[in-house]
Amino acid sequence: MEKERETLQSWKERVGHELDIVVAFWLEHSHDQEHGGFFTCLGRDGQVYDDLKYVWLQGRQVWMYCRLYRKLERFRRPELLNAAKAGGEFLLRYARVAPPAKKCAFVLTRDGRPVKVQRTIFSECFYTMAMNELWRVTGDAQYQSEAVEMMDQIVHWVREDPSGLGRPQLPGAPASESMAVPMVLLSLVEQLGEADEELAGSYAELGDWCAGRILRHVQRGGQAVLENVSEDGEELSGCLGRHQNPGHALEAGWFLLRHTIRRGDPKLRAHIIDKFLLLPFRSGWDPDHGGLFYFQDADGLCPTQLEWAMKLWWPHSEAMIAFLMGYSESGDSALLKIFYQVAEYTFRRFRDPEYGEWFGYLNREGKVALTIKGGPFKGCFHVPRCLAMCEEMLSDLLSRLAPASAPAAALSARSPPADPARRGAE
Amino acid sequence: MEKERETLQSWKERVGHELDIVVAFWLEHSHDQEHGGFFTCLGRDGQVYDDLKYVWLQGRQVWMYCRLYRKLERFRRPELLNAAKAGGEFLLRYARVAPPAKKCAFVLTRDGRPVKVQRTIFSECFYTMAMNELWRVTGDAQYQSEAVEMMDQIVHWVREDPSGLGRPQLPGAPASESMAVPMVLLSLVEQLGEADEELAGSYAELGDWCAGRILRHVQRGGQAVLENVSEDGEELSGCLGRHQNPGHALEAGWFLLRHTIRRGDPKLRAHIIDKFLLLPFRSGWDPDHGGLFYFQDADGLCPTQLEWAMKLWWPHSEAMIAFLMGYSESGDSALLKIFYQVAEYTFRRFRDPEYGEWFGYLNREGKVALTIKGGPFKGCFHVPRCLAMCEEMLSDLLSRLAPASAPAAALSARSPPADPARRGAE
Repeated sequence: MEKERETLQSWKERVGHELDIVVAFWLEHSHDQEHGGFFTCLGRDGQVYDDLKYVWLQGRQVWMYCRLYRKLERFRRPELLNAAKAGGEFLLRYARVAPPAKKCAFVLTRDGRPVKVQRTIFSECFYTMAMNELWRVTGDAQYQSEAVEMMDQIVHWVREDPSGLGRPQLPGAPASESMAVPMVLLSLVEQLGEADEELAGSYAELGDWCAGRILRHVQRGGQAVLENVSEDGEELSGCLGRHQNPGHALEAGWFLLRHTIRRGDPKLRAHIIDKFLLLPFRSGWDPDHGGLFYFQDADGLCPTQLEWAMKLWWPHSEAMIAFLMGYSESGDSALLKIFYQVAEYTFRRFRDPEYGEWFGYLNREGKVALTIKGGPFKGCFHVPRCLAMCEEMLSDLLSRLAPASAPAAALSARSPPADPARRGAE
Repeated sequence: MEKERETLQSWKERVGHELDIVVAFWLEHSHDQEHGGFFTCLGRDGQVYDDLKYVWLQGRQVWMYCRLYRKLERFRRPELLNAAKAGGEFLLRYARVAPPAKKCAFVLTRDGRPVKVQRTIFSECFYTMAMNELWRVTGDAQYQSEAVEMMDQIVHWVREDPSGLGRPQLPGAPASESMAVPMVLLSLVEQLGEADEELAGSYAELGDWCAGRILRHVQRGGQAVLENVSEDGEELSGCLGRHQNPGHALEAGWFLLRHTIRRGDPKLRAHIIDKFLLLPFRSGWDPDHGGLFYFQDADGLCPTQLEWAMKLWWPHSEAMIAFLMGYSESGDSALLKIFYQVAEYTFRRFRDPEYGEWFGYLNREGKVALTIKGGPFKGCFHVPRCLAMCEEMLSDLLSRLAPASAPAAALSARSPPADPARRGAE
């Protein structure tokens, strides 16, 4: 017990210290003081190598700053709040391609002109996360009405009529579902419903629908999580059908664990731990070099994606969250052991002790393949979210082990926070 | 002289033998006897792992089979001609998404239903190459009228009005030109104009325009070939502007060399060898592990593409063609030396002595990263085109060195063939 406490305590300290370094990196290098919003194309030392603004990453950084501000006392600093507000204003002003229509760009110029639009829902989802979290820290109702209206639009696209996304209907394209869609929607259900009984109630059916859709991606008699399934929940033919993304399955795993916590369903919890945590870890962890493969083929064939064997930062941060949460919820020490295994690999390979933040892309052998700290898909999100959530869960575990000697966690991972939604704005 | 002759002779034999093995691989594994067309998603041993039909690769394989049939006596076999015709019929029937409109799909199901459409001209370009070459071997005028009509449409999209491609005009997207566009058009000018004075004449201005546009990609006072430039021929900002693709520059190099041969412009030849052969080779060849990088940044920054440091088969086959052609045309032995260097690396690393054909994707260190022999972007094209062209050029060089003892090449690399366009149909 004392040994376990020590190990947990040491990881809590490592994780908390790392979070400070990571946040400092983004505070120092990413703020666009002129136009608002964030530079995310940052080299190893933080230098801006491109000033394009990717809307996913703008929304995520706003969300992350607000969340840190709201949840962790030491980050309740005006520079985070002000940067988040400037990022939110940038999104309000420029993210939508043809307002009042809700479709958002994928990437904008530094001054907000649209460069590219994706025919998916993801820019809009991260816009929604940003707006809801901004409302929570500022209390400004405009942000919340933006969030709720965008959420309505996204749900309409996903469940009723996708035609507004602009994807052509081609007779050879199978009606398929990417797991990303119900996943990101489920995370929005949690986001909007936090400490808000009315919204939580009105999205309860949607949350169950998302969870049900994600669970349909467990295929082959429970032996594989597949990224894409047919509209009827069946395996698709060819590479599309066999495509696997272990990090994504693990991320879905912790989204689903949170869902079971909200819904109070311990039987489902065991299924999720088995299928979305242990299964992708066992098949996705590289036995030769360690680390999680980026993509796999369910038949063990060679994937066609050139980067399939690379080790990316985000599957590892998602795995850290998933296994620590799995352990927190189940008490199964095998999950804690895997958390340590993943965390050791991750801290050893991805951290950059010299300039801060993490490298994002390692080769199969675990060597840094790209020295960038941010780019079109890596911003201020997965790393600090992982570190903040792990810090919180580790604090909670420590306080459960030795309630007297360890400081109580600010917020419990088990129960939604009791703080009013607008606490940070007081 | 004798030593040079021996080395050339030995490479001619290696290349010719390799071509036989590569063609045998596609003949054995890729034919769809039921629907016509070709499977290109082939595993290491030739097994079909996906039956989707990528239109680029359908067109390219039709072209390649016809070209081999037409140019090399030992490939004048009914099985090549019949498979090419079945591929051509498949394209005629299914490639266009909404006939009579000319836009072609990017990928079709096995039975020809469109799965995806790209908003570019490339499917249409490879369709055109296939149809023109089919006409050359069969004499069937329908193929040629398909080729010429599609060419008119492509030129209209490129030079007059791109709106039919369906790309949205976004205010933040710079009007830019990818070098791929004038490159592929220039290759079509050569394809359609071969031994056809009338068409060669009517495309002469277009060929000069393409060459001029490609030459504008030499930037920074002649120190870098950039993949993308502005509509005015200036460097674009950010990663897009700094993006370099050494294999593409080398491929453009031999397209331009052929252009100078047709146009009789030796002064331009020296410039092309300097800027499109030596420059990309010097900056793109990995000094540590050998091989050409896939992508680079003109400022030496880290590219954002995950696969930037990988070694792909096609830049190496294009480099072999480019340096052997450069030597054939200039007699500069430094170029022959580089041909040997590239060919040694390529034969050592990409060949699969066990199952035939080449691996397509190596990691930075030159180890096989993907074991597939074909996929969405690798088919029966770059490898056999390289081998057939190198065999022809090596024969020509040998016959120039020792006209009496070496058999004359079927066709000279220096002058366009004198055979009538329909020779293969006789």
